[in-house]
Amino acid sequence: MSLLQFVNFPNLCDDRGSLVALEANKTVPFDIKRVYYIFGTQKDVARGYHAHINLKQVAVCVTGKCRMILDNGHNRESFWLDNATQGVLIEDLTWREMHDFSDDCVLLVLASEHYDETDYIRNYEEFVRVVKSDS
Amino acid sequence: MSLLQFVNFPNLCDDRGSLVALEANKTVPFDIKRVYYIFGTQKDVARGYHAHINLKQVAVCVTGKCRMILDNGHNRESFWLDNATQGVLIEDLTWREMHDFSDDCVLLVLASEHYDETDYIRNYEEFVRVVKSDS
Ligand SMILES: Cc1cn([C@H]2C[C@H](O)[C@@H](COP(=O)(O)OP(=O)(O)O)O2)c(=O)[nH]c1=O
Ligand SMILES: Cc1cn([C@H]2C[C@H](O)[C@@H](COP(=O)(O)OP(=O)(O)O)O2)c(=O)[nH]c1=O
Repeated sequence: MSLLQFVNFPNLCDDRGSLVALEANKTVPFDIKRVYYIFGTQKDVARGYHAHINLKQVAVCVTGKCRMILDNGHNRESFWLDNATQGVLIEDLTWREMHDFSDDCVLLVLASEHYDETDYIRNYEEFVRVVKSDS
Repeated sequence: MSLLQFVNFPNLCDDRGSLVALEANKTVPFDIKRVYYIFGTQKDVARGYHAHINLKQVAVCVTGKCRMILDNGHNRESFWLDNATQGVLIEDLTWREMHDFSDDCVLLVLASEHYDETDYIRNYEEFVRVVKSDS
């Protein structure tokens, strides 16, 4: 499976403005059990630096931009999230980092599971070990 | 039941910035089947002007602000949505209007049902008739 799976959402734009809708189990390929947003990120701060054992997510910058790194233990890709109509699908066992947040960035994340601290892998070496034992 | 039901979300704020998480069937009192966001709204444009027969929503401005009107056919309330940590719960059979969008406004809405045009009531007089026949 490709590491980078972008999801394009139609912009239901009219003379009033823009509207983007994401539907669970349709454009978003899972039940949406949790929604969170990251904003007011301080200058020169990076976030993330973790993977999850059992968690799928779709991430989209609804305003502003940030640079995301995804890593499946074999490949690492860096790309800009800078478009409210394009999300990225983050599968289980994917290391993620977010860098270079613009001042106005609001990063919206839809998640397939409730928050569970025990599902986090916060150590990169441990992540690589888990990926190897999993394959 | 009160017309205005605000939901306060904790700000998981640290020295990196802010993070707000909304959990289905916990802080958000329904399954999240759909998520949409309204942005790039043109100056002096109002949106909404409809009710729904079977749809619960939580609305929150993740950035910027707008003024929302909610009307249950008996009472009408106007208030500002201007805080990323405070949403408003919109029940079935509630007329809603959104006014005075700031340029930077991103209005995020979590919805209990998939998009269904047949669930909309777009005429205020019809809405009042439906409310009366429902009670
Ligand atoms: C994503 C999320 C985080 N949190 C908490 C866990 C951490 O203490 C803090 C930051 O979460 P974390 O996942 O470490 O943020 P990031 O991936 O951006 O680095 O917020 C929740 O309580 N619920 C959530 O849904
Ligand atoms: C909310 C929503 C709207 N739409 C379409 C229906 C309309 O043609 C257009 C605008 O929706 P509408 O609900 O009328 O927007 P507002 O409440 O802000 O006035 O987008 C979808 O396709 N899916 C959705 O989830």
